[in-house]
Amino acid sequence: MEYIEEITSLKEQISFRGMIDVPSAIDNIVIAGMGGSGIAGRIFKEFYTKKPVTLVRSYDIPEFVGPKTLFVAISYSGNTEETLLATKKAREKGAQITAISTGGKLAELVKDTVIVPDGYQPRSAVGYLTIPLLSGFELFNEPELDVAKKLLINSDVNVNPYKKFADEIFSGSKIPVIFGTPGFDSVAYRWKTQFNENAKVLAYSTSFPELNHNDTMALENTYRKDEFYFFVLTHKPLEKEIADRIRITSKLCKFEMKEVEGEGTSLFSKVFTLIHKGDYISYFLAQKRGVDPRNVAVIENLKNELRKSK
Amino acid sequence: MEYIEEITSLKEQISFRGMIDVPSAIDNIVIAGMGGSGIAGRIFKEFYTKKPVTLVRSYDIPEFVGPKTLFVAISYSGNTEETLLATKKAREKGAQITAISTGGKLAELVKDTVIVPDGYQPRSAVGYLTIPLLSGFELFNEPELDVAKKLLINSDVNVNPYKKFADEIFSGSKIPVIFGTPGFDSVAYRWKTQFNENAKVLAYSTSFPELNHNDTMALENTYRKDEFYFFVLTHKPLEKEIADRIRITSKLCKFEMKEVEGEGTSLFSKVFTLIHKGDYISYFLAQKRGVDPRNVAVIENLKNELRKSK
Repeated sequence: MEYIEEITSLKEQISFRGMIDVPSAIDNIVIAGMGGSGIAGRIFKEFYTKKPVTLVRSYDIPEFVGPKTLFVAISYSGNTEETLLATKKAREKGAQITAISTGGKLAELVKDTVIVPDGYQPRSAVGYLTIPLLSGFELFNEPELDVAKKLLINSDVNVNPYKKFADEIFSGSKIPVIFGTPGFDSVAYRWKTQFNENAKVLAYSTSFPELNHNDTMALENTYRKDEFYFFVLTHKPLEKEIADRIRITSKLCKFEMKEVEGEGTSLFSKVFTLIHKGDYISYFLAQKRGVDPRNVAVIENLKNELRKSK
Repeated sequence: MEYIEEITSLKEQISFRGMIDVPSAIDNIVIAGMGGSGIAGRIFKEFYTKKPVTLVRSYDIPEFVGPKTLFVAISYSGNTEETLLATKKAREKGAQITAISTGGKLAELVKDTVIVPDGYQPRSAVGYLTIPLLSGFELFNEPELDVAKKLLINSDVNVNPYKKFADEIFSGSKIPVIFGTPGFDSVAYRWKTQFNENAKVLAYSTSFPELNHNDTMALENTYRKDEFYFFVLTHKPLEKEIADRIRITSKLCKFEMKEVEGEGTSLFSKVFTLIHKGDYISYFLAQKRGVDPRNVAVIENLKNELRKSK
């Protein structure tokens, strides 16, 4: 499959019918996942705040994990070392365990695994990896899904705005910086990782209002400011408070942010349309740079060397 | 008070005797704090995983906040808008509320506020803001405290290594990137914010092993790699798995990380000595750049403009 086909499959991915079982007797949720698979947990946290949600991005699990914990292990390959080890530890502590994966060792380990279609790069299976979580907790409805699909189809029609961003980043060899706003912190991080993995450029993300307490001081008079390319991820209606912060920060620190909007009225459509736009921009930047957006050889090499050194 | 005096007061700050009251009947902990005050919650999360800990870095609080929640509001000035609003919302939901502050509106709002010494920049009061949390939960002991004090006194004796890092960053106008390791993610973020606020340079942080799933792809062949300056925060004994990742990542991606170590054997001494080293480096970088590390005028201007636009 070409990478562009993977990207444009997001509209089909969000119709995926698999969902995790959510037991009623839980006090908290722990989601383990790394990189492209870990993003699903981050997105889930934007949608769900009825119980504490803790993300695990390493081998270790929190002490509180126990029978009242729903532990969700997410690994597209099913063979992510960190996630497998964390899942084993969660089992020892009696957690209620479910998983999302194409199979691998994780599906052997966890009977209750939602199996998703394989053949994708983990990071371009973001729909498949996220929907079973959101569905299990009933965090979107059919009308929202329909609207999101239409908006995603629309964004495939005219990709020139994404190309333009990529051109500008490329022609100045700029480092992308992505500012989230409340509800879209996870998407800002998703953009960062897509710039890293698809376009092979350094990038970082942070969010309003937190960045007004630190990055703002740098933005006023850092060196190299012109070598960065700033995005801010917004939606409508944007809280006045946040809109004011964006406007005033830009004015006081004398720099420009490219505003990219999540579309539609639901959090669901806003999140997925924003993810889609970031995917496109990073893809076009890869094209411009002449690098293969699918290639993750260095990560594979790293895994091999880690295995050998054990 | 000179900024260097603030920095070198960390050894006294960690002896601060104030502590929050921790009710026994709680299911979860929510800590609200922005910027320099927010770092205390991040550090706390490294020490405490017996119950879920959720950090609030905006106006909104999670839906689950209720009578079984210990809500800790941290604001050095006591007047941080986001934290005050979040605290009011937590009160409406019946949470058990405590606060750490020099006073301000927060101390008026929350009777049970631990009052810390004033006259510091919030970010250089990191000891005062963190200790009441760690003490309340009994997360360190007297011998650990004594060792940490001695190590901090030692690090004040020879500051040349920190100056050298600052010189190298300055002479190449480099952008600092700080890689954490498990247990020190919060400290990596602290370094980033200190580079932002003290030295007024852009910077970002991320951590092993997560960065091996995204930044690593960029590190192999991003443009501008030579314009960044990479730190990795470690300690002894470092997990073999993480040591391998650092070594192999550096080799495969052909770049150098400056390793900076937390000292001593307890998490307590490691965390505070690492914070101290980052404070120094960012301070010396400010000196080199000829900027005032205390100056946060742009943040004050921003707050004023925000107030006016209401």
